[in-house]
Amino acid sequence: MTVEEITEVPAEFTARLNELFRPRGIAMIGATDKSRWSVNVLQNLERYEFAGPIHLVNPRGGQVHGRQAYSSIAELPDGVDMAFVMVPTRAVLDTMTALADRGIRTAVVLTAGFGELGEEGAALERQLADLCRERGLVIVGPNGNGFIHAAAGVVPFGMPISPPLLRGSVGFVLQSGALASYVLHFAQARRVGISLLVAMGNETVLGLTDVVRYLIADPDTKVICLFLESIREPEEFRQACAEARAAGKPIVAVKVGRSSVGASVARAHTGSLVGDERVTDAALKQLGVIRVPSLEDLVITADLLTRLRDSTAGRRVGVVTGSGGACELLADVAEDVGIDLVEFTPETVAELQSFLPEFATVHNPIDVTGYVLVDPTLMAHSLEVVSRDANVDLALMITDAVRESSPADDLIEESMRRNAAIVRASDKPVELMSTTLLDITPFTREMAERADYPPTVGGIEHGIRALGRAIDWLEWVRSDEAATAPAAPPAVPVPDGVAGQTWTEHAASAYLAEHGVPMVPSRLVGGADEALAAAQELGFPVVLKLAADDIAHKSDIGGVRLNITDEATLREAYAGVEQAGRTAGVDPVTVLVQPQRSGLELIVGIATDPTWGKVLAVGLGGIWVEIMKDSALRVLPATREQIRAAFEELRAAPLLHGARGAAAVDLDALVEAVYRLGELAVGLGPAVDSIELNPLLATPEGVEAVDALITWA
Amino acid sequence: MTVEEITEVPAEFTARLNELFRPRGIAMIGATDKSRWSVNVLQNLERYEFAGPIHLVNPRGGQVHGRQAYSSIAELPDGVDMAFVMVPTRAVLDTMTALADRGIRTAVVLTAGFGELGEEGAALERQLADLCRERGLVIVGPNGNGFIHAAAGVVPFGMPISPPLLRGSVGFVLQSGALASYVLHFAQARRVGISLLVAMGNETVLGLTDVVRYLIADPDTKVICLFLESIREPEEFRQACAEARAAGKPIVAVKVGRSSVGASVARAHTGSLVGDERVTDAALKQLGVIRVPSLEDLVITADLLTRLRDSTAGRRVGVVTGSGGACELLADVAEDVGIDLVEFTPETVAELQSFLPEFATVHNPIDVTGYVLVDPTLMAHSLEVVSRDANVDLALMITDAVRESSPADDLIEESMRRNAAIVRASDKPVELMSTTLLDITPFTREMAERADYPPTVGGIEHGIRALGRAIDWLEWVRSDEAATAPAAPPAVPVPDGVAGQTWTEHAASAYLAEHGVPMVPSRLVGGADEALAAAQELGFPVVLKLAADDIAHKSDIGGVRLNITDEATLREAYAGVEQAGRTAGVDPVTVLVQPQRSGLELIVGIATDPTWGKVLAVGLGGIWVEIMKDSALRVLPATREQIRAAFEELRAAPLLHGARGAAAVDLDALVEAVYRLGELAVGLGPAVDSIELNPLLATPEGVEAVDALITWA
Repeated sequence: MTVEEITEVPAEFTARLNELFRPRGIAMIGATDKSRWSVNVLQNLERYEFAGPIHLVNPRGGQVHGRQAYSSIAELPDGVDMAFVMVPTRAVLDTMTALADRGIRTAVVLTAGFGELGEEGAALERQLADLCRERGLVIVGPNGNGFIHAAAGVVPFGMPISPPLLRGSVGFVLQSGALASYVLHFAQARRVGISLLVAMGNETVLGLTDVVRYLIADPDTKVICLFLESIREPEEFRQACAEARAAGKPIVAVKVGRSSVGASVARAHTGSLVGDERVTDAALKQLGVIRVPSLEDLVITADLLTRLRDSTAGRRVGVVTGSGGACELLADVAEDVGIDLVEFTPETVAELQSFLPEFATVHNPIDVTGYVLVDPTLMAHSLEVVSRDANVDLALMITDAVRESSPADDLIEESMRRNAAIVRASDKPVELMSTTLLDITPFTREMAERADYPPTVGGIEHGIRALGRAIDWLEWVRSDEAATAPAAPPAVPVPDGVAGQTWTEHAASAYLAEHGVPMVPSRLVGGADEALAAAQELGFPVVLKLAADDIAHKSDIGGVRLNITDEATLREAYAGVEQAGRTAGVDPVTVLVQPQRSGLELIVGIATDPTWGKVLAVGLGGIWVEIMKDSALRVLPATREQIRAAFEELRAAPLLHGARGAAAVDLDALVEAVYRLGELAVGLGPAVDSIELNPLLATPEGVEAVDALITWA
Repeated sequence: MTVEEITEVPAEFTARLNELFRPRGIAMIGATDKSRWSVNVLQNLERYEFAGPIHLVNPRGGQVHGRQAYSSIAELPDGVDMAFVMVPTRAVLDTMTALADRGIRTAVVLTAGFGELGEEGAALERQLADLCRERGLVIVGPNGNGFIHAAAGVVPFGMPISPPLLRGSVGFVLQSGALASYVLHFAQARRVGISLLVAMGNETVLGLTDVVRYLIADPDTKVICLFLESIREPEEFRQACAEARAAGKPIVAVKVGRSSVGASVARAHTGSLVGDERVTDAALKQLGVIRVPSLEDLVITADLLTRLRDSTAGRRVGVVTGSGGACELLADVAEDVGIDLVEFTPETVAELQSFLPEFATVHNPIDVTGYVLVDPTLMAHSLEVVSRDANVDLALMITDAVRESSPADDLIEESMRRNAAIVRASDKPVELMSTTLLDITPFTREMAERADYPPTVGGIEHGIRALGRAIDWLEWVRSDEAATAPAAPPAVPVPDGVAGQTWTEHAASAYLAEHGVPMVPSRLVGGADEALAAAQELGFPVVLKLAADDIAHKSDIGGVRLNITDEATLREAYAGVEQAGRTAGVDPVTVLVQPQRSGLELIVGIATDPTWGKVLAVGLGGIWVEIMKDSALRVLPATREQIRAAFEELRAAPLLHGARGAAAVDLDALVEAVYRLGELAVGLGPAVDSIELNPLLATPEGVEAVDALITWA
């Protein structure tokens, strides 16, 4: 049964991955004293007290790492659920066959030399994938360092891991083997415990999304952290994100790497609006993934969310500090991230004034002043009062731990117990944060454990930004937007023989109009009489445009005439356009008649992103897009609410609402038009590369597109 | 002699401040066992081995801190240069008098209860200032924790300081007492040594700028760090920044606090362009001050600059790592800050390929792969090769220190020595950086000291941003812009009786034209015949505008007529405008005649910032400023180059250069016009609050302002 197949049956899936991540026994295949990896894996398994038997296999048998090794996989005793494979690249396939023969169905494959090494390696990797599928093997890797299951005490990992390994509730899925150690060290220094960390390797069989799903089901994991190089299975990733939301488990991610926009969209104007980086950003945001810029932010944000995800935390924060400088630093960052340092209630102010020194200025954030040297209970007392303030959703204290033993240890531990009691007693979330990002030293960690001291967030700069992200996520997860997944629109039949074509003007307009996109009506005519009839039908004033896909700047050659208000002008204009067409070699000349319209000029484009598929970009026309790069993106399908939010996100959004004395445009009609366009594009699927409305005119009465461009794949 | 007076004589100034910062002997006034501050000060002086005598003064005499105390200042022996004053607020003045009588001329005043406590305290502070001026006393504070002169071993500081105190070359001037400890802890954890740190307190006598100047002259200090709440002496600060630049000492600053824009500029349109926060940002940038967002960035950036400030470092950086994930993280941040990860030369690529494993992809940044476990010299060897690459200005290695003792200590120390040798041998700057921001633990610090290991920058996220800032500063300090201070323009006589007036239209235009600002000519007329004469003189087409300062929207009442091409239209239009004026109650009606012009509409405003004085804001007119907030600021006086740079900084700058097929505007004329306006505003000084040109029309042929507004103070 392949991973894909077992994924369909959640209980089966978890049971199978438990064989891998919580094996009864482990065999190290290719164990040898000569390999640092082999030494590290055994050391990690022993140091972190793997509870089951560990067997070594080496073709020469004998003593390895001071243990008796088996000379073949076939000899292994029963009870081995997982193998750690470190054999040479050429021996991997035979090893996997032998494992399957012995009934061992899961493995970590550390061995490199596959897809990462060019075409020959990729061929070998395909063979490995086929073999695993045929024999029902689930493997992490190849070219992966393994995993660290701190919660279960299973650490088959190829790099050294310094103790202590703190057990906790943050799960990590990393598309980088070497970064695992740094993430672990950083988490350790922040006193953040992990549940399961997996270094994915090449994802030949087990993919990132599979592990994410395992963590969603894992009761030890509260928050999931990702280090993403590329999202290989966007559809499954989307689904996993929806499951994570339903389970209330935040996903926090560092996404690295920028690549250029797919060539497929280069022709359409939209190409310049859609960069891979911005699409990724929009996609992750739509999926509720909390994107962070650094590994530090990954750990700090995730840790905070282990506590806040189930809390009533909100944007209104009350802060206690022992330093005016810290108050100001904090207030600046809070403003950046939209944290509201609310006014305290008069009751809180009065209560604080009753015990703080008279020269303390009592407002939020509060500086209890240097008198904390005289009365060390000032901070705790203030925190208790602030946490009870009716205006406050979350109370925060800036407090810096001591770093090493001193004669004042007893006093300090007492103070920690005092703070811990307040945090525990509060019915609102209460967080502790240091001024700067420093290690929680082993000394402090041990004292904190003795005092049952809550976690401390790492520094104002990272901490307040993490708090802002956490609150954004909480607001998102509680919102209708998170609850409503956009519906997949029905498939739309693709017109025959369009492959590779580009439709402009009448062809594009007529097609879009037919599919419910509001277009300015146009008539294609072949003479002045027909033009007049069309103008009379559509109503004056009208415009005439030379119909010719391949002439780029028609105005320049006299191929466009505006403001035609009567028959005489129309006939004169028609003759001019016809002449321009002949001069340009168009034969026979046909001309488009459109009623002349005006309104706020928008541009709406849909392009195809290699990872995320159809992506919508909206912006104002002309210089707004070209010079100001003022556009907003949504991955499709998107709900009407998401499309509306895209327009609201534009810097130019006030113009839609009627800035500078103008009337507001009909935003409902605008959203509906774009929604219909999105349905069409997604419904057409890979057959269409891009569609663009430019300009789309918006007025208080409605919207209509003047011109369009469709690029078929 | 006051601080202001001695500042004029550099040698005198330094000698005098040496009495304070490098005293022969120190007296603690108000020393008592009951005060934590007293305990801390003595402990700090003793722990950090103050070389001179320490005397205690307590009115009751007897034993204090286990020493014999003097009962009065008068009894103090000779050789005391500085006093640390911790007496009650009411006793401060008498204490200072007694110190002066005893010939002790410098002090730290820790006592609080002055200006920070309202009007009564402020009055006392003024008395203190007067006394110090009269008696020639130089004091730090009051309400200041003192200073830490690590380089000289003088630590009269009121808060506890955990050892070790690392001596180094970063100086700190902090407008926050409580943050000093956190800055110190963070510096210590980064193995960054300090020279002198001063917590300023109320700056009653010694100001921030005085200490900055002392540090500029101090041979132990290479880089100056500031924590700024407010810049109290902007002119002196400006001067100090110029001196720092001349001395090649970078200034790095955290500036906290946002305040609203001065009310004085509220009336002018410019008000919305000039926020205190943006002005501060522009001012610091113009002065070459490196503004950073956090205390972490303050220390990390300053430390990096202690090494790079005198180096040939540039934007082209070559990087060696042991992890593909680190490469990608780093590349993303490098792109953000404009660091150029250059292509290696073919020679470098060939040399790297000769010893790296075949599956390593050799490009910049280079990942030497996990084979570093097999061959621990791979990193050092690669670094050596990369540092020799002709394309590379600076070589960087991502390397994470061990955190505690292990059986591999000898191997690790050997590896550190290997890296250290490469850094020392290179004729280019070579930097070492960790993956994440973690403490350099005491264990690692001691090993690094043994191995003479160079400093390590703290983490990719903070480190690469710090590197970007350092390189920006290096480019700035080498540029003409840094070398050319804008000249102070000559004073301009203020017209009589203008105080409180607002000039618009003709009055403002005529005044500005008279002072060399290009204005569209206008004639004020009192009848259709005069209007015709004016139009004939100026040339058709013209516009007519009702002249009436107090009518805001003249177009709405028919008070403006455009496109007047001949006499008949003029007479008809004049009658209309006249009628509109009468209807609006204007009597007598006067009308402005202007030639009709067109061009790119700009807005240029000068406002008065409470700290920085005259500030220039430029932007495009209309929605560009109102909706897009697209404006650029410069503090005046500014050079023509700085004004040009302000225009280039606009997101809309491409429009000036002729985007969308238009011709480029005459940028020289634009810069000259704005320069003239700036000269006038600065020359008028405090008499003028704001001046605004709106619109200023720019064309390929030149620039002219259509309308103007002058607000007199």
